Amino acid sequence: MKTHLRLLLALALSAMLSGAAVRKVTADDPLPSWNDGQAKTAIIDLVQRVTNEGSPDFVSRADRIATFDNDGTLWSEHPMYTQLAFAIDRIKSLAPEHPEWNTTQPFKAALDNDLKALAAAGEKGLVELVMASHAGISTAEFEQIVKGWFATAEHPRFKRPYTQCVYQPMLELLTYLRANGFKTYIISGGGVEFMRPITEAAYGIPPEQVVGSTVKTQFEIKDGKPVLMRLPEVDFIDDKSGKPVGINMFIGKRPIAAFGNSAGDREMLEWIGAGARARLMMLVFHDDARREYAYGPARGLPDSKFGVFPEALMDEAKEKGWHVISMKNDWARVFAFEE
Amino acid sequence: MKTHLRLLLALALSAMLSGAAVRKVTADDPLPSWNDGQAKTAIIDLVQRVTNEGSPDFVSRADRIATFDNDGTLWSEHPMYTQLAFAIDRIKSLAPEHPEWNTTQPFKAALDNDLKALAAAGEKGLVELVMASHAGISTAEFEQIVKGWFATAEHPRFKRPYTQCVYQPMLELLTYLRANGFKTYIISGGGVEFMRPITEAAYGIPPEQVVGSTVKTQFEIKDGKPVLMRLPEVDFIDDKSGKPVGINMFIGKRPIAAFGNSAGDREMLEWIGAGARARLMMLVFHDDARREYAYGPARGLPDSKFGVFPEALMDEAKEKGWHVISMKNDWARVFAFEE
Repeated sequence: MKTHLRLLLALALSAMLSGAAVRKVTADDPLPSWNDGQAKTAIIDLVQRVTNEGSPDFVSRADRIATFDNDGTLWSEHPMYTQLAFAIDRIKSLAPEHPEWNTTQPFKAALDNDLKALAAAGEKGLVELVMASHAGISTAEFEQIVKGWFATAEHPRFKRPYTQCVYQPMLELLTYLRANGFKTYIISGGGVEFMRPITEAAYGIPPEQVVGSTVKTQFEIKDGKPVLMRLPEVDFIDDKSGKPVGINMFIGKRPIAAFGNSAGDREMLEWIGAGARARLMMLVFHDDARREYAYGPARGLPDSKFGVFPEALMDEAKEKGWHVISMKNDWARVFAFEE
Repeated sequence: MKTHLRLLLALALSAMLSGAAVRKVTADDPLPSWNDGQAKTAIIDLVQRVTNEGSPDFVSRADRIATFDNDGTLWSEHPMYTQLAFAIDRIKSLAPEHPEWNTTQPFKAALDNDLKALAAAGEKGLVELVMASHAGISTAEFEQIVKGWFATAEHPRFKRPYTQCVYQPMLELLTYLRANGFKTYIISGGGVEFMRPITEAAYGIPPEQVVGSTVKTQFEIKDGKPVLMRLPEVDFIDDKSGKPVGINMFIGKRPIAAFGNSAGDREMLEWIGAGARARLMMLVFHDDARREYAYGPARGLPDSKFGVFPEALMDEAKEKGWHVISMKNDWARVFAFEE
């Protein structure tokens, strides 16, 4: 009896941990961290249709392209973008050479961990921080700095390396798509050279399939050796209407699946949605404060500085047949480290 | 006896047609259109070293990246860049809507087929032509125009579609590299959206592996549908020092092999040459007026408006161990249509 009770308790606990919806795990389930529901069904349905040579929706391997936003879609973007955490740490390590930062915004805010003042500095302030902390060095030096940071930095809530704060259901989705001949790309507003050092290990996505925002770089000969120097000048912002531009520039084809989570992904989904072939557009909705975070402002959730999901985006999703993934209901597990 | 004579004549003719050097063709030769010599040996040597897991020069598949210039390296760039021929044709077809072009340079020069006046208009003039002929339409419209042009346009000397004026030895090289796990990229000063519609069929290189110069594009909603409009504004020039910048931006890794043919490829070869691994840098030298064209001004050949190979580049190649491919001596065959 005791054993029986323990079993029941374990089952109940497991059901709680695995979210609200009931979950059927089978040995050959390619998406075990997804609860059964519309979202999971939509993914499997697309893959089956485009890979079935007899189907009118068949798509050749060369054209099976899926694009993923990064922040908030593949990994956590709260309490702040990972790249902002990096920029703040970098500002701190450079501060001894810049005494003027102690009294100048947005640097003072970064040094004081003053998120409110940072937010008040707006996009202009963030760009200033990134330029001061990401430029004036070669691409090779920057890569080493980024790698070094990721090796030691930890997410403030989950107390783990940021590269572990990636969503397990999305890792399964990436693997499932690739196993079915898809090429998976990141299309992120984040800096491309901040992401590339870790995307292969974190997501199985090689550097050449990472599209992001860039600073201008310049070819120079230094001490007789060619280097690419990172200039303090924005080159391309791969966000909002920049996302379809980046997709066209880097891929040159229209993807058939796109995954995002915020207003910054709207134009990407519109662009993929306007394709002629079978296609799938999905948005991750962060409604799970217990396991991760909950923010909107759609559906009455709190507004957010990072990864805004407005009610208008929810309306557009409904109107255009984009699927909204409820983190709380659709994901049986959020992080691999949960268990 | 007559048969014997005919055989001798055929052999002599075949030796003439196949260039100066003696050519050994074996059934398993991956590069049958290359004569035996330093260039062919260097290619096979690199491939054997980087694919041999026991070799200290072994390179994993993910890092076997080879970059190719297009004009003059993969296809003919004389009597003018193919894209310039396209721009001139496009200016002609747009001329009825632009009566002012009859009296304004560089448009008048294009309408009059006046190559000398076009050359006098310089780079600024060429950019004006390209902007007027390549912009103000959507990326989808431009793609259709490019495809339509390639379907009917012919090379003025070879009287064949431009997509057939590709170098047979380089096609074999692309195939050989890919068969050995290399990813092959185009890194060209030409417009990326001019090349992408034909690179898969011409070279087996998909759109996402074509890096080139770009105009700015802008996401717009037209008649309720999202489009990317091509703006009359240069975004990126993928030439000279722009080539390492483009490689870093699009690939994010340093290739281990690079192929070019002119001063525009110098920085690309310097960048690849500065890598730490086994690597190969090669320049095609156009010294074959009979089968293709001969231009320098290196080695006393005539100077050129398109694809300049100065003596200084020859000197740098010698100093840095870059291989110079003599079209006349190293290539047994230039075009597939020769036979």
